[in-house]
Amino acid sequence: MEDSALAPDQHPHVVILGGGFGGLAVARGLAHSNARITLIDRRNHHLFQPLLYQVATAGLSAPSIAAPLRQILRGQANATVLLDEATSIDVAQRRVTLANGELKYDVLIVATGATHAYFGHDDWASYAPGLKTLDDAFTIRRRVLLAFEHAEREDDPARRQAWLNFVIVGGGATGVELAGTLAEIARHTLPREFRRADPRKANVLLVEAGPRLLPAFAPELSEKARRQLDKLGVEVRTGTAVTAIDRDGVMLGETPYPAHTVLWAAGVAASPLGRSLDAPVDRAGRVQVEPDLSLPGHPEVFVIGDLASVTQADGRPVPGVAPAAKQMGRYVAATLEARWQGRAAPPPFRYRDDGTLATIGRMAAVAQFGRLKLSGLLAWWVWLIAHIAFLIGFRNRLVVMLDWAWAYWTYARHARIVTGTDEPARRGPPSPGEQ
Amino acid sequence: MEDSALAPDQHPHVVILGGGFGGLAVARGLAHSNARITLIDRRNHHLFQPLLYQVATAGLSAPSIAAPLRQILRGQANATVLLDEATSIDVAQRRVTLANGELKYDVLIVATGATHAYFGHDDWASYAPGLKTLDDAFTIRRRVLLAFEHAEREDDPARRQAWLNFVIVGGGATGVELAGTLAEIARHTLPREFRRADPRKANVLLVEAGPRLLPAFAPELSEKARRQLDKLGVEVRTGTAVTAIDRDGVMLGETPYPAHTVLWAAGVAASPLGRSLDAPVDRAGRVQVEPDLSLPGHPEVFVIGDLASVTQADGRPVPGVAPAAKQMGRYVAATLEARWQGRAAPPPFRYRDDGTLATIGRMAAVAQFGRLKLSGLLAWWVWLIAHIAFLIGFRNRLVVMLDWAWAYWTYARHARIVTGTDEPARRGPPSPGEQ
Repeated sequence: MEDSALAPDQHPHVVILGGGFGGLAVARGLAHSNARITLIDRRNHHLFQPLLYQVATAGLSAPSIAAPLRQILRGQANATVLLDEATSIDVAQRRVTLANGELKYDVLIVATGATHAYFGHDDWASYAPGLKTLDDAFTIRRRVLLAFEHAEREDDPARRQAWLNFVIVGGGATGVELAGTLAEIARHTLPREFRRADPRKANVLLVEAGPRLLPAFAPELSEKARRQLDKLGVEVRTGTAVTAIDRDGVMLGETPYPAHTVLWAAGVAASPLGRSLDAPVDRAGRVQVEPDLSLPGHPEVFVIGDLASVTQADGRPVPGVAPAAKQMGRYVAATLEARWQGRAAPPPFRYRDDGTLATIGRMAAVAQFGRLKLSGLLAWWVWLIAHIAFLIGFRNRLVVMLDWAWAYWTYARHARIVTGTDEPARRGPPSPGEQ
Repeated sequence: MEDSALAPDQHPHVVILGGGFGGLAVARGLAHSNARITLIDRRNHHLFQPLLYQVATAGLSAPSIAAPLRQILRGQANATVLLDEATSIDVAQRRVTLANGELKYDVLIVATGATHAYFGHDDWASYAPGLKTLDDAFTIRRRVLLAFEHAEREDDPARRQAWLNFVIVGGGATGVELAGTLAEIARHTLPREFRRADPRKANVLLVEAGPRLLPAFAPELSEKARRQLDKLGVEVRTGTAVTAIDRDGVMLGETPYPAHTVLWAAGVAASPLGRSLDAPVDRAGRVQVEPDLSLPGHPEVFVIGDLASVTQADGRPVPGVAPAAKQMGRYVAATLEARWQGRAAPPPFRYRDDGTLATIGRMAAVAQFGRLKLSGLLAWWVWLIAHIAFLIGFRNRLVVMLDWAWAYWTYARHARIVTGTDEPARRGPPSPGEQ
């Protein structure tokens, strides 16, 4: 690829689709290059997704984990942000069609990520919201908080209990985090505030189809997580498939379980944009890229982050986590710089695993750093420090620290604010809180 | 009314409709009484409305100015909170009909406040949102932030300018605060972040039908406010009526003014519940109450806050502001305690004016304390300290102070996060940020 080296006065147009961890890393990595960069996102903000479950469970406010893309990149003169949505890509013509126009590119980075998937049961979406965007988080927050309000108004014991039953489908990190936090809210935050319903009677049920929780962790940590959830009062059922979901509850195999609040933390599907790239995709819709993350046959197109399916030299796949997306972004920026300067390309992309963390609840977490495995209080401290350190922006760090310190001492969750309305299709009779 | 004194074992049921400043003041004022209290609100939170414009202009996050009603009252054993909406009141049967049932009362407090009114032009609502709830604030925030995004995408100069023109209708405190903050955002917060549109070309037009801004203040302060707005770059037009509003802009008398973003800060109408009380109402729908704030002929029903029309002994009306609502709430609690204990009723309600404040923008405000009139930097400091002091909750005060200090030094507005969707009827072609 030496023939694509640039003359010093050339300014290749790099179009980046998606302002997540991957897309931003490319933009920042090319800050001192000759490139003209256009970053396109359909939202105006970058989202610190690892803490999204805290917005959903009313522990943090939305602005604490989100920052305007324009603000992040305002000091970078070679970068432009455009609020728009790519609808298709023409790799032959090097052209992206947007909802509001089209763009030509010299280099294209596709980093549009993944969303939740319902394994062909799209009708479950309205009963069991997933957690990918701030609006998803508000929907979950609204439903969880209103469930307790419905319970308080309900006189019939069985109907009241159905409002106090919470089902979380999927035992990965998000499912474990949601379940642990919901149990904490029911046991510690709310009890003194209700006069008729008793929030302590809430059941939080975590259902996982596979044999164990947190499959990305070592088996002994899965077991530790299970025990810590048990202590918090979460009922865990592994090896249990959800076969139906409707407004009254879920079917666990053949057994109905009544619950008006069901949260989806199970399936992930890659952004549909991947399928317009004319390249092989895996079952989840992720694009199978070359070892240098470029599209087969198109060295000017890169796919990174959750949308990319990468198998490393040692045969292991790269996990769909934020650090991997960041590393891919930095790798692509370095590859482009080398190419433009006529230097040799870097060796194939290799994911450096700096450790995996999942929090479980108040002062409980699991962490795995290579062979080192931690759980309980120590893991929780590591989780806390790591997440504050990686938050974008000094102000956000300060506010999140303050919020957490506050929540730690008081058990209060300061963002317990119901706003917005739910889809009218969701439930039977409308209730005033939803209007 | 001595005959309604209570035996010590009696527990009159006090039903409070509305958890604003007035309703909460009654509930808290009766904390040590024999009463059983039921507070009903259709939202789960109390809102610190004087700072709502800061949520709308992305300076504060919603949880900073809102607190769950249950949390506020959780320590008060004789109070119950119910998330529900009163639809009608039967004063003869002493019964309130709710969206989800009904309630009998011994004493009723109606404190359901006011909403914005469009003077018979209800079709203006979708083009010119008002500011009463958190959802209203999110709508305004979304439209303001997206207007700059539309401008950035627009190539045609006239069409771009229409996205950079902002009209605020109504020159009271809310209108002045919105106008000043919008000008600050356009001039100071955004300029370095856009590459095509220039936010400094934004026009902020404040339109007032009456002869001067801030009619609740002394004329010289209206003039000071006008000059301070002028310095910030706001164009003020008093004596100008808006005669039409649609998606393309407003009509100022016979002159069209193109603007895609119009905010409504003009009319206020009392809650429709007042009309079901079978009592005289004024033109704005406010209930004309007795000097002790009770309903004529119904000493067991009180109307307080923005819903009440009270003329004091000196002939002056009580203004529709938060301190007045609080004072009315405390007055009613004291009246009830006196009645139950067989003591003489307090003298007629009298509003104690502790001063009026309106902020205009960065380091500018006007303040009036009896004959003392302040403007500029000193008034701004008074405003700042007063608003932080009255915020509910220690945590909120700390976070708001931090946010303001941060914004002061950096001009950044940390809550610049677009979430949710707009009404589909609002604009022509859908844009991705609105989907």
